[in-house]
Amino acid sequence: MKAIYLMGATGSIGQQTLDILRAYPDQFRLIAFSFAQNLDAARAIVEEFKPAAVVVADSDLGQALLADFPELEQYTDLEAYAAHGDYDLMVNAVMGSVGLKATLAAIQAQKEIALANKETLVMAGDFVMAAARDKGVSILPVDSEHSAIFQAMQGLDRQDVKKLVITASGGSFRDKTRAELVGVTVAEALAHPNWTMGAKITIDSSTMVNKGLEVIEAHHLFGWDYDQIEVIQHRESIVHSMIEMQDGAFLAQLGPSDMREPIQFALTYPRHKPLQDSKPFDLTDIGQLHFEKMDLERFPMLALAFEVGRRGGSFPAVYNAANEVAVAAFLDGQITYLEIESLIERAVADHVEATELSLERLLEIDRSTREKVRGWLAQ
Amino acid sequence: MKAIYLMGATGSIGQQTLDILRAYPDQFRLIAFSFAQNLDAARAIVEEFKPAAVVVADSDLGQALLADFPELEQYTDLEAYAAHGDYDLMVNAVMGSVGLKATLAAIQAQKEIALANKETLVMAGDFVMAAARDKGVSILPVDSEHSAIFQAMQGLDRQDVKKLVITASGGSFRDKTRAELVGVTVAEALAHPNWTMGAKITIDSSTMVNKGLEVIEAHHLFGWDYDQIEVIQHRESIVHSMIEMQDGAFLAQLGPSDMREPIQFALTYPRHKPLQDSKPFDLTDIGQLHFEKMDLERFPMLALAFEVGRRGGSFPAVYNAANEVAVAAFLDGQITYLEIESLIERAVADHVEATELSLERLLEIDRSTREKVRGWLAQ
Repeated sequence: MKAIYLMGATGSIGQQTLDILRAYPDQFRLIAFSFAQNLDAARAIVEEFKPAAVVVADSDLGQALLADFPELEQYTDLEAYAAHGDYDLMVNAVMGSVGLKATLAAIQAQKEIALANKETLVMAGDFVMAAARDKGVSILPVDSEHSAIFQAMQGLDRQDVKKLVITASGGSFRDKTRAELVGVTVAEALAHPNWTMGAKITIDSSTMVNKGLEVIEAHHLFGWDYDQIEVIQHRESIVHSMIEMQDGAFLAQLGPSDMREPIQFALTYPRHKPLQDSKPFDLTDIGQLHFEKMDLERFPMLALAFEVGRRGGSFPAVYNAANEVAVAAFLDGQITYLEIESLIERAVADHVEATELSLERLLEIDRSTREKVRGWLAQ
Repeated sequence: MKAIYLMGATGSIGQQTLDILRAYPDQFRLIAFSFAQNLDAARAIVEEFKPAAVVVADSDLGQALLADFPELEQYTDLEAYAAHGDYDLMVNAVMGSVGLKATLAAIQAQKEIALANKETLVMAGDFVMAAARDKGVSILPVDSEHSAIFQAMQGLDRQDVKKLVITASGGSFRDKTRAELVGVTVAEALAHPNWTMGAKITIDSSTMVNKGLEVIEAHHLFGWDYDQIEVIQHRESIVHSMIEMQDGAFLAQLGPSDMREPIQFALTYPRHKPLQDSKPFDLTDIGQLHFEKMDLERFPMLALAFEVGRRGGSFPAVYNAANEVAVAAFLDGQITYLEIESLIERAVADHVEATELSLERLLEIDRSTREKVRGWLAQ
């Protein structure tokens, strides 16, 4: 029986993680979870799963939950439970840099980690992977692309892998030229062709920032050089990603667009157990799969991701922080779609690398980049 | 250093196996090889690889070779060297039931086996796999489809595999209706869209007998029920085959149509080492992959293969023997294309299962089926 600490339980990945726990009650026990705002969903989780602890930063929400469930242990800090909680596996499905600190605490405590939090590897991949190696901790990817690569790599000698090929749907504007991007609306940007996802990640898919972040994560997670990572456009999102082996053969992982599969694989790793209520999937119903080269002039944010990845240090953190502020501003109607890109470019161009990087320095650069970009918005 | 016994060295698989040995002289040594007729090719092999022994049934050819290379040990029987030779790995790339007996001798001698000989598993899969399990011998597939499945299954718990999906190009007549098959010529049948292969296997691809034999081989090789094996049409032959896992995700092996890849994987297993002079392969150059359901009314020989496979015993041997005689007769201009199918159907319908099956009985059924079908041709 694995005791699970689920961070971000009321979000999309969190809820799908609960589906897996529900399907395998004899294998998993929810020992603790965190939530940010959705009190009703949190109540339902406590009632159904009877966890020992909850993590919630907002003290009013904490009080409200405690009134109904006085026996529930309460924490206000993700990192504190990560460091001291009595769990086996952390599912890190929160957004933002709080996720990074909690991951590091889980590594120090030598827990297994199923990772959906992007900041962990984008901001501090070198630190995190060095700590994980040092402590002998496994970081299991939850993202469909990274899980696909991880699944394909099982049983292979890593020397025998030549290249990672990450697929990209192309996002909601894949058939538009750059000229046609002028004046696109938020509603248009949110209409993703294949996946139903949150607003932020849907925009990131359309700008290809999401794919850029995935490239940086793949670099850290699998330890491959950027030259060995390729992105191709695959409209149907059926092939979730591939690896090329030294003999020129490829292994591709493919299937329906159901995030529960990679989540479950991270939990049941290395086993592929039946996925409850999965829709039957038949490639002949889809009929055709398309693969196209990525146009880096059409998607300059993908080219920039490779650039910040290669420069390393705090450049990926700057790219990520600027993007978050810019996308929020776009969703809020403050800037145009194309200004997302120009803000990221400006932040990267404006950044001067710190002479000595530490985790605190990275978090500080994350904060200061956000402030700086917000300042530009106010001008 | 692995000592290789290459049976069928002058054929297509044999020559490509020699390419691999040539590329990795520090890992492989050709200790023995067999050939049937091509004396010049055999001479070239002896000169280049300096093997210790040769196997050739024809005594004139044997004498001719001995005259040039008096130090060469000679055998007239594949099975004898398989049983007593000082090799580590047999590459079985001969056609016909002689290949079966040699495989069994190699299993008894506890050698590794890279298997390209179809008869071994089609005629006597139950016997062969039981003997291999008993002796702890690995049978490594050389066929591209079976190698694809084998490659995808590395690192997986076999309980976690739900289904094997074998791809079929559809062969040279895939776009013809059954009515359009009336009167097709040998030359038309030999024009395979994707692979350059021998005449017999090209015809077998067009009738789907080849795919049927592969289904029977996959059943034995991987121990899966026929219900767990599916065939889909995939025109481009890029995806060589797939497995579906219990969680609904698939792993597909794909790449260029280069038989050296599966041959090399069988030799270097479990490693995927660089393949010399391989053409760079980019899925975006191909652009589209198509997948269609197999039409079992269009391809009745595929349906019949599942039927003889499920009936088991000597039925697959009868199917295979009748096909060999029928295809030879078609290539020889004695019968029409569609008569290949009717001869196989008649042989299967006419077959009465032996009460007790032994290996000798199976070989006898193979012989008597061939005689019977030849008799029908003479009528």
